[in-house]
Amino acid sequence: MDMTDLAQRVSAGERRALARAITLVESGREDHRAQAAELLAALPQDRQAVRIGLSGTPGVGKSTFIESFGMMLIARGLRVAVLAVDPSSSRSGGSILGDKTRMDLLSRETNAFIRPSPSQTHLGGVARRTREAVRLCEAAGFDVVLIETVGVGQSETVVAEMADLFLLLLAPAGGDELQGVKRGIMEMADIILVNKADGDLKPVAVRTCADYSGALRLLRKRAQDPEGYPCAMTVSALEEDGLAEAWERMEALIGWRREQGFWEKTREAQARYWFNEDVKQRLLAQLYHPEARVALAALSDQVAAGEADPSSAAQHFVDGLKG
Amino acid sequence: MDMTDLAQRVSAGERRALARAITLVESGREDHRAQAAELLAALPQDRQAVRIGLSGTPGVGKSTFIESFGMMLIARGLRVAVLAVDPSSSRSGGSILGDKTRMDLLSRETNAFIRPSPSQTHLGGVARRTREAVRLCEAAGFDVVLIETVGVGQSETVVAEMADLFLLLLAPAGGDELQGVKRGIMEMADIILVNKADGDLKPVAVRTCADYSGALRLLRKRAQDPEGYPCAMTVSALEEDGLAEAWERMEALIGWRREQGFWEKTREAQARYWFNEDVKQRLLAQLYHPEARVALAALSDQVAAGEADPSSAAQHFVDGLKG
Repeated sequence: MDMTDLAQRVSAGERRALARAITLVESGREDHRAQAAELLAALPQDRQAVRIGLSGTPGVGKSTFIESFGMMLIARGLRVAVLAVDPSSSRSGGSILGDKTRMDLLSRETNAFIRPSPSQTHLGGVARRTREAVRLCEAAGFDVVLIETVGVGQSETVVAEMADLFLLLLAPAGGDELQGVKRGIMEMADIILVNKADGDLKPVAVRTCADYSGALRLLRKRAQDPEGYPCAMTVSALEEDGLAEAWERMEALIGWRREQGFWEKTREAQARYWFNEDVKQRLLAQLYHPEARVALAALSDQVAAGEADPSSAAQHFVDGLKG
Repeated sequence: MDMTDLAQRVSAGERRALARAITLVESGREDHRAQAAELLAALPQDRQAVRIGLSGTPGVGKSTFIESFGMMLIARGLRVAVLAVDPSSSRSGGSILGDKTRMDLLSRETNAFIRPSPSQTHLGGVARRTREAVRLCEAAGFDVVLIETVGVGQSETVVAEMADLFLLLLAPAGGDELQGVKRGIMEMADIILVNKADGDLKPVAVRTCADYSGALRLLRKRAQDPEGYPCAMTVSALEEDGLAEAWERMEALIGWRREQGFWEKTREAQARYWFNEDVKQRLLAQLYHPEARVALAALSDQVAAGEADPSSAAQHFVDGLKG
């Protein structure tokens, strides 16, 4: 396969070429990695999509939201790609995106591209693959890349570090319960969307939204936030209500960040972040080799039993790696 | 220096030998590291102190608390060691323990031993050194080892992973402000102590304590927590009020965890944790060599400028390390 040719076809927006290119960057094979590096280097550097991170625990209506929100963007003439970061997909059988039928309309749109999370046990591996898939979607001319994740903690950090803005989708909740949302995730959110603001749940959604507005004010004030952000608002993905307003808020935030220079600065900082993470991953990858695992487990047992101190055991292991 | 001899003198409780042994484990010199490993292996394995992690932001009266609490323990016939984890000490000129005069009474007690944080820029290095200092203090027959830290986030994790129980010291605060305490730190706390419950501040302290009692119920319920824990209570380090009650609560928690087997299980898990951390530290230590830093900085600039993608640049760097 000629990588210059594949890069050109991706850049021309050919869906089949894009899918093939993503399969390539997802591969762990050494020769595929080399080809992927060649492919990435051959892509145009001047195309930027709006990268939107989206998190929300199961049951908040994430598929319905992606479907409605994506269709709304497409109706405005935008091309939308949807990717996922789901570190558990290899075990549980896939993220919500594994089942495209749940996004029935969007999956049939020629201006939409949906790709489930790569199956990998290591979050670091999923991160690298998703990041490169984002780059491919940008090169293929998509205007918006939605990167969804499952709300389990570390995967949010991964998504936030590759997104221009971060959405948190929540369900209406009675009382002042915090819905098990980790505070760290709330701190990442630029916009909290309280979904299901329809029917009987509407008043609860409005109250939940007010609660989170208050919490957001306590949680964060960053230089990258203009007046009025982060913010919380209600939407109904089911009734397609509030989606246009949500997009307006996103556009306003993006516009402001571009003007202030934060957009570029954030992308630069993210690139540096991923470079550093990638270097660390590659150094730590030595620990996952089968022989290393056996040695680690045996030493760990000795340390737990008090037969060796952690530092000496570690020295012993690292010496073993070199030999 | 003969390590068997030094280990014996530490075990006999000789303060000068203990200080010397800690200086040895704090050293970064290769030959000292080898001696330290020998020393640690020669220590008795059967002595266990109660390891208490203590966190609190500046201004909450941590030195006064350590002084009063430590003196109360000594009055009960216990021997008390105080160590610190302060990753900033090399820059700011030291943790509160750098200035022993703030613990005037305790520092003059023969049954107390106070040691400031080792000066190291890397938290991983501080962690290893403090952990080994804790082991030395246990071998020297101390009954309680207080490990204090500054409340800046990551250092709390370090302390919690080497402590049997974790205290969070807070100041009375009006309203429902969260005093800038990171939620992660609150989630680690077994007992929150609201200090300065004296004079005019007493009513505020009582209210603050009630607020945190409520917050704790929302935040955590672990298998290692019996009914009634985690808990919040008021103390006055200045008036030596509530300190005995605080110690009773700690003893009750420790007793329960010992009976249930959590004490040993936690220590085993901590040993495994530190072994794994130590292995990672040693692998990542390659990044801190001067030449590696130069190469990393140059590649990072290329990545930020979009001239190289993070993954290829990382591959390039790691290949360079091997060559």
